[in-house]
Amino acid sequence: MRVDNGEVGARTPLVEEQRQLARDRIKRAAVEVLRDKGLGATVEEVAIVAGVSIRTVFRHFGTRDHMIASALRAQLIHYGDTLPRPRVDGPLEDWLPALLQAVHGLNAELGRAYWELAALGPTLEGELAEAAAQRRIGRTKLVAWAASTAWRLAGQKGRPPKWLFDTFAIHLSAFATRSLVADFDQDPSEVAEASSRALLAAVEAARR
Amino acid sequence: MRVDNGEVGARTPLVEEQRQLARDRIKRAAVEVLRDKGLGATVEEVAIVAGVSIRTVFRHFGTRDHMIASALRAQLIHYGDTLPRPRVDGPLEDWLPALLQAVHGLNAELGRAYWELAALGPTLEGELAEAAAQRRIGRTKLVAWAASTAWRLAGQKGRPPKWLFDTFAIHLSAFATRSLVADFDQDPSEVAEASSRALLAAVEAARR
Repeated sequence: MRVDNGEVGARTPLVEEQRQLARDRIKRAAVEVLRDKGLGATVEEVAIVAGVSIRTVFRHFGTRDHMIASALRAQLIHYGDTLPRPRVDGPLEDWLPALLQAVHGLNAELGRAYWELAALGPTLEGELAEAAAQRRIGRTKLVAWAASTAWRLAGQKGRPPKWLFDTFAIHLSAFATRSLVADFDQDPSEVAEASSRALLAAVEAARR
Repeated sequence: MRVDNGEVGARTPLVEEQRQLARDRIKRAAVEVLRDKGLGATVEEVAIVAGVSIRTVFRHFGTRDHMIASALRAQLIHYGDTLPRPRVDGPLEDWLPALLQAVHGLNAELGRAYWELAALGPTLEGELAEAAAQRRIGRTKLVAWAASTAWRLAGQKGRPPKWLFDTFAIHLSAFATRSLVADFDQDPSEVAEASSRALLAAVEAARR
């Protein structure tokens, strides 16, 4: 039986912790490169940003696609964990703007890679196709959760009407972020501002 | 001096009309291929759909990029010409749903090519970059026209508030079409239905 000496993670061998540290650093670098270069990000680009050798990247991830897919998976999990939960019966007007700020900020974080994942999903293969499928499932859950939570906070029972659900789907989309950031030179917080006002107006109209 | 014999286009030599006919047919075929294959559409794919030889495509357009760009330009002009104008002082509730139906239908017509044009714009080169720039200018004009027309039909003076303008930008976007068509298996008319209800609610909220 091993004895815990009080150090954090002391039960994990040092080499394993170091390995994890390297992997995390490479994944963070990959997210950065993915944002600008999209799914075509190369191992060399990621290695430079991570400050490691190309060989180190391959040692930890085996293939380029596995490295990219691991970074995408980590970012998608981070996405779900970061979203603000509403206070119990707190006002919709507090939660919805905070949710939209978080969503459009996160959408912009993966930048071009997120939009390619969404747009090219059906044409991708292997692990990248799995990441695209995971994004779609996460998105479907997010929309259902956000629309039904908003509906409940607005004091309504049952399911929100279909058009309201669809309106949430449009405004929570990385495509909405993209449509204003790319074509109108706005930043994600401006997109969130417009989206939360539009969604509050939609919830109000649907209640009547 | 030439004499007009009364036939339509009689002043245009037959060979020129035939040339135009071939070009139009190839451009229509290109739009069809662009919808499914995106900007990577090949001359061979377009030739098969047009029912002509690869050589004929090259004779009429010189390069693949020129053929693709010509088809994109024709479609973008068609876009602007097809949108419904409001009746003078007609009700907003008549015009806005018709506009959204037209917009989301047209957005879906160019399909994958339109989304790639929007998403990859900054990385494109030559004539394709010009087509992407033209799309962006057309989109900016469309949003400004639609938002200010809606604001006027709602009986308001001056410019609409920024968030309302931004909400129009989100809902008129091909990205909005895409976000529901691709991720939620909806058709463009369902997107238009949600978008027009959301925009009517937004205009109503902005007036208060």
